[in-house]
Amino acid sequence: MALIVQKFGGSSVADVEKVRRVAGIIEECYRAGNDVIVVLSAQGKTTDKLIATAHEYNPRPSKREMDMLLSTGEQQSVALCAMMLNGMGVPAVSLAGWQVDFKTNTNYSNAAIKSVGSERIRKELDGRRVVLITGFQGVNKYDDITTLGRGGSDTSAVAIAAAMHADLCQIYTDVDGVYTADPNKVRGAKKLDEITFDEMLELASMGAKVLHNRSVEMAKRYNVDLEVLSSYERKPGTKVREVKKLEQVEVSGVAKDVNVARFTLVGIQDEPGIAFKIFRILANEKINVDIIIQSLGRENTQDVTFTVTRADADAAREALEASADILGYKKLDLDTHVAKISIVGAGMLMTSGVAVKMFDALAKKKINIKMISTSEIKVSVLVDEDDADKAVQAVHDKFFGD
Amino acid sequence: MALIVQKFGGSSVADVEKVRRVAGIIEECYRAGNDVIVVLSAQGKTTDKLIATAHEYNPRPSKREMDMLLSTGEQQSVALCAMMLNGMGVPAVSLAGWQVDFKTNTNYSNAAIKSVGSERIRKELDGRRVVLITGFQGVNKYDDITTLGRGGSDTSAVAIAAAMHADLCQIYTDVDGVYTADPNKVRGAKKLDEITFDEMLELASMGAKVLHNRSVEMAKRYNVDLEVLSSYERKPGTKVREVKKLEQVEVSGVAKDVNVARFTLVGIQDEPGIAFKIFRILANEKINVDIIIQSLGRENTQDVTFTVTRADADAAREALEASADILGYKKLDLDTHVAKISIVGAGMLMTSGVAVKMFDALAKKKINIKMISTSEIKVSVLVDEDDADKAVQAVHDKFFGD
Repeated sequence: MALIVQKFGGSSVADVEKVRRVAGIIEECYRAGNDVIVVLSAQGKTTDKLIATAHEYNPRPSKREMDMLLSTGEQQSVALCAMMLNGMGVPAVSLAGWQVDFKTNTNYSNAAIKSVGSERIRKELDGRRVVLITGFQGVNKYDDITTLGRGGSDTSAVAIAAAMHADLCQIYTDVDGVYTADPNKVRGAKKLDEITFDEMLELASMGAKVLHNRSVEMAKRYNVDLEVLSSYERKPGTKVREVKKLEQVEVSGVAKDVNVARFTLVGIQDEPGIAFKIFRILANEKINVDIIIQSLGRENTQDVTFTVTRADADAAREALEASADILGYKKLDLDTHVAKISIVGAGMLMTSGVAVKMFDALAKKKINIKMISTSEIKVSVLVDEDDADKAVQAVHDKFFGD
Repeated sequence: MALIVQKFGGSSVADVEKVRRVAGIIEECYRAGNDVIVVLSAQGKTTDKLIATAHEYNPRPSKREMDMLLSTGEQQSVALCAMMLNGMGVPAVSLAGWQVDFKTNTNYSNAAIKSVGSERIRKELDGRRVVLITGFQGVNKYDDITTLGRGGSDTSAVAIAAAMHADLCQIYTDVDGVYTADPNKVRGAKKLDEITFDEMLELASMGAKVLHNRSVEMAKRYNVDLEVLSSYERKPGTKVREVKKLEQVEVSGVAKDVNVARFTLVGIQDEPGIAFKIFRILANEKINVDIIIQSLGRENTQDVTFTVTRADADAAREALEASADILGYKKLDLDTHVAKISIVGAGMLMTSGVAVKMFDALAKKKINIKMISTSEIKVSVLVDEDDADKAVQAVHDKFFGD
């Protein structure tokens, strides 16, 4: 008998039939003798509709009032699901964030979690009730409702699992697990049985939209075992945990990210602190930089190349141009027609030649590599956007092909 | 400068245009320098829709979960109205019942108010913010959300006004005040400038649906000055308070109630405790009795006549028939084709002949009186239902006609 947290997203609870299906999953877990905590998002498009309604009342509503409004969506979800479970003979109780002491900071609409109380939840579990908790929301030190921003409900579930020392946190979604590549785009993509937190983080940051990074980071920090699985099919999903139990494979997945723009500052004087100067300018504009490469240029100068998201490209260019005198570069080059292809795998550490295999696969397809970056569990290359899908397939075939 | 509580019902805040109108009323009160607390119901038919949705999930949902669900309606109202006010440059903050420590007992769906905290509200008012509070809901000792049942938002407003020692509690509605009779049915019905709590209670209990009795009783207990006025017209309404400032008129209003059934138990042995026996039987069935008349019958027997609501008539007959042996009556007579016509007025106490004027008016129209009951501020008569409207008009003409 275990303590299990189950999280269901908005599309999984969109209407009465979907809630019935979800209630069936919950019931099965409960009747097996487990303590069950369920975290729900708002039903279907409820949040989007509430945002649209809010804008009828005020084109720029305060975040504080927006959180007050949006939090009603999850509250309706948990109450309705509790009713459904009760109707099936499963004792269940719904609770909002403030009722379980789900404390956050005061950053409305994008609040950070501070702590989750265990007392009320424990009491309800001890009464053999399924405890349904609103995802996405908490309460700050002023007793005001806050919401957690993007990926909020996943993060809620993990925070609750951590606070309750749950044995497993199941994230139910519309896919049945984590794949070696996007199964809709890459032939031969395979579902993974297991993956480490770090691998999951690298994959998520590259656009594998299965789990939000924030929730995986929290799961890693508090060592909460995760499982990603489907609301629609009753079969095991992908376990995400600190150490994989299966023999480690060298590469867990291949991912593509086209939300990339590449800058090169050519011919910067090679003097101490120049990198700091460049990236402080961008940090002041709240622009996040991803890959950075510094390479020797001609005549005692350097070329500095880095990537940002496409949304930040214009702001980055303006900031860098405005500081042209301070930075003293000869030329600013911006390429928004690039894609980042990455392979991720905790096994890489122990295996030599992984990067070489990737480069080989790309070379055979005559795909030009514009930039390379490596970390302990990842190799990323920048290629022309037109080559991106071909590159992913080639690399995937190399590592996962029969 | 005063502290004013303004309550708006669901139809007054049904959509964005109506909320704009309400926000205009609030703004005017705020800009005049007053501290303003606003209590809102859920928008339009929101509560009915949520109830219908709940029944899709469970035909008999628990009251605890129903309260969790329904309370979201008011929360949406106050958040949206706060956004609207903010957009007009009026600082405003929305608060749910639990955020203002609106404590109730644990009677879900029909909770009784225990106390209202003043601290948070005071802090917001001191910051010169309009404070918008959810009507109809509170929180019990388990930190669970409760709702107040019928008339809940009016009662919320009065409870908050009492806790904050407000100078006035304005109940905005779709009528512009309290009338001497139903203005849709009685020619010459006039709006009253003032009315006492007791008069209002008698009128409300007779079906003048302007204010729920529960809110008037609370206003009387805590001496909260009320004003009933229209959300649509900017003009004074009717003040409800302990003592009227204007010279007291003998009669404040005429009301009709057709939800009446009359029982007569004929020929009961005249012995001590017989009335107790009868009404204990009805009380055991949770049947409320309104008017009671005990009169001498023939040969040392009595006739006992009383009225109940029509909904209770069948249950009352069954109970009385089942106890026929104990009660020992000769005949049970039930008439469901009656109406109660009442005149109400605090001035009656000091004025003789009020009842006589009423009987005179009815006699002139040849309306037969079946039963009479008087209290300090009320005279009620039972007439045939077919005569009811004619009776109201005749009595109204007598007291208010030119």
